[in-house]
Amino acid sequence: MSGSFPAHLEELMTGLRQLPGIGRRAAERVALALLRKDAGELRRLGELIASLPEKVTPCPQCAGLAEENGLCAVCKDPSRDDSLLCVVENVSQQLAVESGGSFRGRYLILGGRISPLDGEDGSGLNFRLLEEQLKKGKVKEVILALSSDVEGRATAAYLADVLRSFPVRISRPASGLPAGANLSYADGATIAAAFAGRVDMERDGGGNE
Amino acid sequence: MSGSFPAHLEELMTGLRQLPGIGRRAAERVALALLRKDAGELRRLGELIASLPEKVTPCPQCAGLAEENGLCAVCKDPSRDDSLLCVVENVSQQLAVESGGSFRGRYLILGGRISPLDGEDGSGLNFRLLEEQLKKGKVKEVILALSSDVEGRATAAYLADVLRSFPVRISRPASGLPAGANLSYADGATIAAAFAGRVDMERDGGGNE
Repeated sequence: MSGSFPAHLEELMTGLRQLPGIGRRAAERVALALLRKDAGELRRLGELIASLPEKVTPCPQCAGLAEENGLCAVCKDPSRDDSLLCVVENVSQQLAVESGGSFRGRYLILGGRISPLDGEDGSGLNFRLLEEQLKKGKVKEVILALSSDVEGRATAAYLADVLRSFPVRISRPASGLPAGANLSYADGATIAAAFAGRVDMERDGGGNE
Repeated sequence: MSGSFPAHLEELMTGLRQLPGIGRRAAERVALALLRKDAGELRRLGELIASLPEKVTPCPQCAGLAEENGLCAVCKDPSRDDSLLCVVENVSQQLAVESGGSFRGRYLILGGRISPLDGEDGSGLNFRLLEEQLKKGKVKEVILALSSDVEGRATAAYLADVLRSFPVRISRPASGLPAGANLSYADGATIAAAFAGRVDMERDGGGNE
């Protein structure tokens, strides 16, 4: 019904289409579903979206997601291990590490990676916040959990260099076959990494570091 | 990061998950994408959602989507054919008919169908609006473009009965093979309908009515 939708709805659908995974049809479906909701629900959802910038703010310690200028849930949690610091590019990666369930240290969200082609020379990244964390002297190991593509590895290499001036172990997550993977379906680079980092059978669940 | 997301973001994700096609992961992805938008965009998107009930209202003539209590774009369009009235269940079906591009008549959006199991005995449907349209005396043909499942056909049969008291032709869209379809992939019911409604080769683009 091109052009015969109310302008308000067209603008809403255009806004929805800016979101990841929402194409033209999905935007239409979502907009029509919203129309069926009651006014109270819509007012609340609208408020939640409009007030995001004031309500969800970067944690001043790790740059993760916090509420109204406070510390984030991980930084506030006294049961977390101060000696382990995991550096990730963004909150999605932090979520992924948390979903593993085994990491109980702290985080530093870099806010991206060095990527000259995208105009990111590192000045927009949270290097200063990282140094501040290390200067507190509690961190014993920094795990650089960045993407394993070219830019992620370059950023990790740069960080590893910078961090040499601190008395900390610098590590990265092991490369290798995903849990439950079948060799037949793994790509060559993954197999090469898994073989290069092979571990002796005597050790249980060892890494390749 | 169960439980360690800011409460505001958790509530937003819960709200997003109520929408069609948005599961847990998609809600997370959309929420994080929203966080990267600037405050102005978020305020506008929030407003668009919150003000839907006042801005997008049912058209008083066809029950389609209109703006701020006015007539909808189709009802306002003087080039539309007043003698053809297409009855659909909802706005999605109206959009589908419009996407065909050939229908230039008017619409009546029923608002659902008779479905005793879902507690819809017809009292919530726009039968009165349909009769009002017919009483104006301009309509010469009513096309019942409802779903072709049991409830849609029952509703169409009921409507056909009611409409006998008006001097109008009552039709339904042809059943048959979809455009470009291969017989090998069509289901039995579709093939049976296509054979029952077969048309002579002399006629061009004929229906089965």
